[in-house]
Amino acid sequence: MNDVYYMNLALDLARSTKGQTSPNPMVGSVVVKEGAIVGVGAHLKAGEGHAEVQALTMAGEKAKGATIYVTLEPCSHFGRTPPCADLIIEKGCKRVVVATKDSNPEVSGRGIAKLKEAGLEVEVGVCQEEANELNEVFFHFMKNQVPYVTLKSATTFDGKTATVAGKSKWITGPDAREDVHRSRHQHDAILVGINTVLADNPSLTTRLPNGGKNPIRIVLDRSLRIPTDTKLVQDQEAPTWVLTTEQASIKKQLELEQLGVSVFRLEDDSIEAALALLGTKGVTSLYVEGGAEVNGSFLKARAVNQMIMYLAPKLFGGKEAQTAIGGAGFHEVEEALELEVKEVTTIGTDIKIVSRVKGSE
Amino acid sequence: MNDVYYMNLALDLARSTKGQTSPNPMVGSVVVKEGAIVGVGAHLKAGEGHAEVQALTMAGEKAKGATIYVTLEPCSHFGRTPPCADLIIEKGCKRVVVATKDSNPEVSGRGIAKLKEAGLEVEVGVCQEEANELNEVFFHFMKNQVPYVTLKSATTFDGKTATVAGKSKWITGPDAREDVHRSRHQHDAILVGINTVLADNPSLTTRLPNGGKNPIRIVLDRSLRIPTDTKLVQDQEAPTWVLTTEQASIKKQLELEQLGVSVFRLEDDSIEAALALLGTKGVTSLYVEGGAEVNGSFLKARAVNQMIMYLAPKLFGGKEAQTAIGGAGFHEVEEALELEVKEVTTIGTDIKIVSRVKGSE
Repeated sequence: MNDVYYMNLALDLARSTKGQTSPNPMVGSVVVKEGAIVGVGAHLKAGEGHAEVQALTMAGEKAKGATIYVTLEPCSHFGRTPPCADLIIEKGCKRVVVATKDSNPEVSGRGIAKLKEAGLEVEVGVCQEEANELNEVFFHFMKNQVPYVTLKSATTFDGKTATVAGKSKWITGPDAREDVHRSRHQHDAILVGINTVLADNPSLTTRLPNGGKNPIRIVLDRSLRIPTDTKLVQDQEAPTWVLTTEQASIKKQLELEQLGVSVFRLEDDSIEAALALLGTKGVTSLYVEGGAEVNGSFLKARAVNQMIMYLAPKLFGGKEAQTAIGGAGFHEVEEALELEVKEVTTIGTDIKIVSRVKGSE
Repeated sequence: MNDVYYMNLALDLARSTKGQTSPNPMVGSVVVKEGAIVGVGAHLKAGEGHAEVQALTMAGEKAKGATIYVTLEPCSHFGRTPPCADLIIEKGCKRVVVATKDSNPEVSGRGIAKLKEAGLEVEVGVCQEEANELNEVFFHFMKNQVPYVTLKSATTFDGKTATVAGKSKWITGPDAREDVHRSRHQHDAILVGINTVLADNPSLTTRLPNGGKNPIRIVLDRSLRIPTDTKLVQDQEAPTWVLTTEQASIKKQLELEQLGVSVFRLEDDSIEAALALLGTKGVTSLYVEGGAEVNGSFLKARAVNQMIMYLAPKLFGGKEAQTAIGGAGFHEVEEALELEVKEVTTIGTDIKIVSRVKGSE
């Protein structure tokens, strides 16, 4: 048992909360005294106790002289809860092991400094890469104030999202489709274009065997064409936000608002304007489920951080069959968005590839 | 050490000859006496000694009372060489372990029967699945008298073979491109459509660091539009066969023939007619390198046995960008060609997926 062992446990605790802590980061903590774990904790939900508080509460008196492992630098400011650094000092911990610094400017470095000033031994950087990757959404949002964008595609091996006749039920198998619902649960919001709404009348909710959190449902709809009898407008399962432009009808807006839909008018119909608005509304992560035109707009705007592809082992063929990313496309090979593969797995009979856009932070 | 251990060694020996035994199968053999390997062999080239002959020659007198492992049923007829079953008997082997039966009607079951009649102990079916997979091209050809077809695609993660402006150099990295040359080496013939010749003027030769066998180069060209100054007509690196139809110009045919190109007129421009002709010419394996229209024709004809995909981690986007399989395509999801994934690997920064068409034999 060493620092890496305990930090990995803290990281596992943090990871288990994926999808439920936004806009806060995922954080895990472990308290160890004389080789025995005396407290464990994770931050479960914004507004509830931080990971360190929970782990220290469990440890009780045993926290005195103990080592506390925490995946993210303890906070030093009064937010919705009192500063964790103070609690760690007060409880009498001897040593603090931190995986990575907080990028929140109100925290970064200050928690660590406070602990050191109080005479505690502080070590920073144990499992740093894993900790940074775990909270890349949080760090991205802190840095850019726009959501971390995940583009999803589900295609045949020959890259088609439908046959030439527009048939697409089903391309991927049930396991891959369930995995999509897990992704919905893990994102603050899901986004589609108005064409997808008109074509499929989707509900965009999270449907998992053991339930799950519905994302905010966002529709890009520059002329407010969304019909009032669609599921997104009628079902009340989760908030529906329609992003439109100045040219849209006021009457239609009022109609939608009376039905509980939020309508936002953007300066223009760019992806940048949409992301900026979502940032101000606290949306830290966005799951883009197409269709082809919307995906093409995100690509052209280079506004993609991660891609999750599902490849179904079948071939549709067809020059005119739809592909996952349409729009204008890049002209030169050198303009292409470059990805770094993070994970290739088999899911049912399909293949899942998770990759990150190079250089995106 | 058991039967499976020695048979795996024989399979490895067989596998090492991939690309050089056509139209014969790959075969490996190991002779074992009192727990020691006393002979190994592989069939290297059509017309040269069979695997058993080589292994038994190496074993010499030690073959007496030994066990011989062979990946394919020993032949019982006089072909270009005398029957191996006779030699095994003559050398005094006590036991014969065979991975799989030969599907050649002149051999199937007869070699085994002959050995049993001579009083040898014969075991069939050790590592049968691997042995069948190893020679699926040979078995396919024996059964259907048409080549085993491998369709190759190289696309971006969003399924594109070029940008909307037609740029495609390069999509995959150098390792994937070298792997394509390995595939060329391993196939009897390579096939492209006339549009690929007109667009790229390819040489379609095998260019590997340590050399390699060039495949026969086949062009589908219903109106004999192939220019006489293309590499395929001029370079003399490997045979070039142009498959055309009755409507093509006789004058152009004579011109091409004088330059060393073989021209074949088919009844119609169907993939079926092309494959039937190649079958009669002894082409057992065909590597199809597109373009989109030709790939689409092979798909529609359901004339694909294997697919090798290279996926480059980049995104081009573009509704009008080319994809790997064009043509008319299937209308219904249920018509799609279904694949079974055999291998997913990383090759450089690209992903390679090898899959077999379900139900193809």
